[in-house]
Amino acid sequence: MNSSDVLIYDTTLRDGTQGEQINFSAEEKLRIAQRLDEMGFHYIEGGWPGSNPKDARFFEMAKEVSFEHARLTAFGSTRKPNTEAAACPNIAALLQAETPAVAIFGKTWDLHISEILNVSLEENLAMIHDSVEYLKSKGKEVVFDAEHFFDGYKNNPGYARQVIETALSAGADMIVLCDTNGGTMPHTLTAIINEVISYIPPYLLGMHAHNDCGLAVANTMAAVQAGVRMVHGTINGYGERCGNADIITIIGNLQVKMNKRCLPENSIRELTHLSNYVSDIANIPPLNSRPFVGRSAFTHKGGIHVDAVLKNPIAYEHIKPELVGNHERVLVSDLSGKSNIAYKAREMGIDLGKETSINKKIVQQIKMMEDQGYHFDSADGSLSILMKKIKGELKEPFILESFQVFNAKTGDNPPVTQASIKISVGGEEELTAAEGNGPVNALDNALRKALTKFYPNIRDMHLVDFKVRILEGCEGTAAKVRVLIDSSDGRDIWSTIGVSTNIIEASWQALVDSIQYKLSKDEENKECKV
Amino acid sequence: MNSSDVLIYDTTLRDGTQGEQINFSAEEKLRIAQRLDEMGFHYIEGGWPGSNPKDARFFEMAKEVSFEHARLTAFGSTRKPNTEAAACPNIAALLQAETPAVAIFGKTWDLHISEILNVSLEENLAMIHDSVEYLKSKGKEVVFDAEHFFDGYKNNPGYARQVIETALSAGADMIVLCDTNGGTMPHTLTAIINEVISYIPPYLLGMHAHNDCGLAVANTMAAVQAGVRMVHGTINGYGERCGNADIITIIGNLQVKMNKRCLPENSIRELTHLSNYVSDIANIPPLNSRPFVGRSAFTHKGGIHVDAVLKNPIAYEHIKPELVGNHERVLVSDLSGKSNIAYKAREMGIDLGKETSINKKIVQQIKMMEDQGYHFDSADGSLSILMKKIKGELKEPFILESFQVFNAKTGDNPPVTQASIKISVGGEEELTAAEGNGPVNALDNALRKALTKFYPNIRDMHLVDFKVRILEGCEGTAAKVRVLIDSSDGRDIWSTIGVSTNIIEASWQALVDSIQYKLSKDEENKECKV
Repeated sequence: MNSSDVLIYDTTLRDGTQGEQINFSAEEKLRIAQRLDEMGFHYIEGGWPGSNPKDARFFEMAKEVSFEHARLTAFGSTRKPNTEAAACPNIAALLQAETPAVAIFGKTWDLHISEILNVSLEENLAMIHDSVEYLKSKGKEVVFDAEHFFDGYKNNPGYARQVIETALSAGADMIVLCDTNGGTMPHTLTAIINEVISYIPPYLLGMHAHNDCGLAVANTMAAVQAGVRMVHGTINGYGERCGNADIITIIGNLQVKMNKRCLPENSIRELTHLSNYVSDIANIPPLNSRPFVGRSAFTHKGGIHVDAVLKNPIAYEHIKPELVGNHERVLVSDLSGKSNIAYKAREMGIDLGKETSINKKIVQQIKMMEDQGYHFDSADGSLSILMKKIKGELKEPFILESFQVFNAKTGDNPPVTQASIKISVGGEEELTAAEGNGPVNALDNALRKALTKFYPNIRDMHLVDFKVRILEGCEGTAAKVRVLIDSSDGRDIWSTIGVSTNIIEASWQALVDSIQYKLSKDEENKECKV
Repeated sequence: MNSSDVLIYDTTLRDGTQGEQINFSAEEKLRIAQRLDEMGFHYIEGGWPGSNPKDARFFEMAKEVSFEHARLTAFGSTRKPNTEAAACPNIAALLQAETPAVAIFGKTWDLHISEILNVSLEENLAMIHDSVEYLKSKGKEVVFDAEHFFDGYKNNPGYARQVIETALSAGADMIVLCDTNGGTMPHTLTAIINEVISYIPPYLLGMHAHNDCGLAVANTMAAVQAGVRMVHGTINGYGERCGNADIITIIGNLQVKMNKRCLPENSIRELTHLSNYVSDIANIPPLNSRPFVGRSAFTHKGGIHVDAVLKNPIAYEHIKPELVGNHERVLVSDLSGKSNIAYKAREMGIDLGKETSINKKIVQQIKMMEDQGYHFDSADGSLSILMKKIKGELKEPFILESFQVFNAKTGDNPPVTQASIKISVGGEEELTAAEGNGPVNALDNALRKALTKFYPNIRDMHLVDFKVRILEGCEGTAAKVRVLIDSSDGRDIWSTIGVSTNIIEASWQALVDSIQYKLSKDEENKECKV
């Protein structure tokens, strides 16, 4: 363990994916896990390997990755009723994940045990005891999630206490009190935790809250106030029903407002980035009003607030927005933006602090494009290409002479789509055509076909994801769209972006950036080897 | 006043409109105010008549309306420094609004008074005293908002106390403690309120919270626990920065969970409707995860939760969703699919309980299409068209002979897009073409052009929103897309859907459904008139 005041346990990749529209591929999960590890999260719950093949694959892939800070955690249930722990496939799947820590949940609410699980209260305790003891015997750190702890406690406090004491006596390292239905009021929660800490030391306790009453963050804070050491949550509060506790808001409150140590100091400035990064991967529009990290979180609309903030920001800002990587915005004025770009440039190894004319040009260009709807936070590939272009470091791999995309439908028959493209590479022209199951797919196919002749390494490259978002709601079919493409060549993944009122044009921009990024990356690697 | 435990003070129309994307016309404000009145809200803060002409016009219009339950309230500031209250235009505007109640805010934080307002602490007290006294002399109920009360109290508790005691001694009916910057932690807030109630009776106190730390609801609940009688909030938590306290969540917690009386019992079942109604008027997509009233608030994604909920809903639902007008939804499982469809059909006036062959066919067809990625929950227009089609009640308004969409790009020039279409209506053919700023827009333009000749009422119709979502992340540009179109004819809004790997085909389906819905609706209305 370590010396933080509060242990941060992220379950975006497990409980977060229970959210209605949340879906991550195994590759996306791994990217998020690595990002959380870099930022110093203490625990990353990666998934439930016994419940679905995608999560099992995630843990397979994660074996090849070394985590510097975080303890990767696999989640599962206790052994089945009337089965040996060693013979239970759930438990076996947890061990196969080969993570340093495992989390298992057990039933705490007697209603659930008798009505849903249909076992005796004694067998439920035995299931918990055996599962924890067996996993401990295999050398695992064991986090025990007491499901429905508060509902259970309200109904039968003696039994709820027996459940967590059983887990503890079997060797569990941490007992997590779960408000699974999200229905507990903070004053009730505090009263119950105060009883619990009379028989379990608070540094062995964690809190897992759901947001059904809009109180997940408050309940987590109340638990920490009562002494609880571990907090569970998800990035952006993703999760089923009304979501889990938003771990970013919790970290903001604990570390920035209350001076408790959660993450390394420099990770706090990345919280805004982290929120946007995960929402882009999830393809869920970021919530502008999200505490600390939302686009509107430090935005002033006008009138007296703007005047006051210009005199002294603390007049209407509860913290300095820069502390969490956010920035003040004043609508109608165009004061902000530069530090944001500098931040991103630094990540790409470009120091915009030096006021050279090229750096100025980069900042201007990015601001102009972000005004138009580009969003470079989530398009590292396009940003890198753009910077290289302005610095004159990019060799254009091909010139587009022209393309046509043709889409036709007759009666009720399925549509037919064809694309033809003419490009030139070093003076040599190539004209080719391809079909596709949609206009963008046809264009993608035609471009690859034309380029493979000149750049065979394009064959390694494939698209991992293709996301479209409408930028302005009220323009109907004339609205601007943002296309985000994730590409991979098996070693790296990069993201590129295009914006246009024409989805084909927007996709074209993102496709071309992606190919340029791949070729430029391979070129640099070749030079390194020479 | 009345016998409720807690007085509900809605400020959607005033503080809510400080939200970045929130904009209501005076007419829209009046519709919302009437709705809130019908539901039994105690106070409706309608706007700031001294600050903008729109709000002044709202109060003019409101004079023609009689409110049954609510006290309409006009908001403003105290008199200006070194001016008579009777001579201050702010105060005059409040009186001109002719509302039974007025709310005025005064500075409580000494930092604000010296740095922003630039007056002496004594003059600030005089401004508060004179303004309250003058408004009382005019027969108004006066709500006094102690701006930045908690920040002020932390900095200079003696002065903060003087401020609210001054307002009270001048005759204020209610003292509202404002956490204007939204930065106060619940334990600090409770400690401060406990001090305040040692010298001001809690039934004269109100709470106004902002959500900058994700704690606005929790802080409001904590204030009520401490005895405070009036709560301020906005529908859906709209408001500047991270928003105000969500008044719907507060009412849910207080009345449904804690048995405190806020609104008449039957208004509680309207909370889901109210949330959607206001988000539609604001044209802000409703937040699916919103506590109590969100579309996902009682949605179960699969696996053990679904099984458990089917056995006993309280297993994973903290309240009966029907209490607040919401309903349980179960995703993925076939079992659930059916009840879900029955529910939707009932809403359309079709009773699927009767096991006729047509009803079976409708259920089968919808299930099959939902498996393919259609999503009828959000496409009432398409669902209605589909049901009418299967029941043989739909007159097809046109036959598509063929269309072609052509998109070309040369070098760096902007792309060119054209669509041509051939349709027939009652044996008469029409061939036409149009341009657009993207392929779907061109097709949309061509279709309308062709149809307007036969159906002039299509001219009333326009697209309000066009949304695209990729359904499968890992297929790259070959992925399936779901297109959702919202259309309006000025009277109604309806949503239609299309799904295909080809975005043009998916858009085509949604466009055709939308037009069919409009024509079939107008046809029915015509029959009604005859």
